[in-house]
Amino acid sequence: MELRETKLSREEKFNGRVLHVHVDTVALPDGGTSTREIVDHPGGVGILALDEAGQVLVVRQFRYAYGQVLTEIPAGKLERGEDPYAAALRELQEETGAQADALTSLGEIYPSPGYCNEIIRLYLARDLRWGEMHLDEDEFLAVDRVPFDQLCAQALSGQLRDAKTCVAVLRAKALLGL
Amino acid sequence: MELRETKLSREEKFNGRVLHVHVDTVALPDGGTSTREIVDHPGGVGILALDEAGQVLVVRQFRYAYGQVLTEIPAGKLERGEDPYAAALRELQEETGAQADALTSLGEIYPSPGYCNEIIRLYLARDLRWGEMHLDEDEFLAVDRVPFDQLCAQALSGQLRDAKTCVAVLRAKALLGL
Repeated sequence: MELRETKLSREEKFNGRVLHVHVDTVALPDGGTSTREIVDHPGGVGILALDEAGQVLVVRQFRYAYGQVLTEIPAGKLERGEDPYAAALRELQEETGAQADALTSLGEIYPSPGYCNEIIRLYLARDLRWGEMHLDEDEFLAVDRVPFDQLCAQALSGQLRDAKTCVAVLRAKALLGL
Repeated sequence: MELRETKLSREEKFNGRVLHVHVDTVALPDGGTSTREIVDHPGGVGILALDEAGQVLVVRQFRYAYGQVLTEIPAGKLERGEDPYAAALRELQEETGAQADALTSLGEIYPSPGYCNEIIRLYLARDLRWGEMHLDEDEFLAVDRVPFDQLCAQALSGQLRDAKTCVAVLRAKALLGL
């Protein structure tokens, strides 16, 4: 079965500080037409940083969209033209103060394929050194450390709800054989 | 540390067929102000349906945002006022023709907490019966069956990229002790 949809035209609908939305009219596989509303995203990174004591660095951050403080791995958006690997090292240091010499890929995830083109690259960081945090002007978060096995249990039970954090923790568990 | 942000005002920015975007001006924890751009979402469901032979029902669907066919568990948005459990039974049947008498919760995930308020409820379906598919008018997909252990390996290796599918598969693996 042919599933591909082809762009016929595009309209930009919203250009915000962070979000950008466009609507494409597309040709469907059966010859009909429809519209696809897409949130444009530059791509992001998430870093599972594991310290010498087997603890994971997590950030507790008020997520306005949900009106609650969530537990997540350090993460952020790519800056214009930025390499994902470099962005991961940058975000890790900015949000937690931790520096790593090398990262191991934990693959990619697509958070919301129905309406957003965001790709999140996940990384594992070990052998951490300590520098200074540099948060964005409107970014407020608390850094905490959680034992790796406790975070795994929370990812599996549903207590941990952030998708990138769940996937990074469970991929790292398999990779490290923990 | 107080992390909460408080809404000062709201502007609706885009009201599409599927996407809705608003921008709130918020008071920050330090007394400053900023804006939060949010994609409004009614919430969604994803269903990991496991048949008697240990195979998972997956849908192969062209995802316009990525320009590629993705492998995902059956999923969809809540209709207005719809109960998530009922929506999961509905979406499973609409997309695959499978019917289930009972679902087991696999918890929730938040796909993009930085800019979207979507909550995806995940369920496990077993003891499947077979009815007819009823796809939306602009929905084209192919249903396939993949051995559960193969899907787990793909979720862990990164070959599987859809976030809800990765989390559902790995939570089901732990729940079922497979």
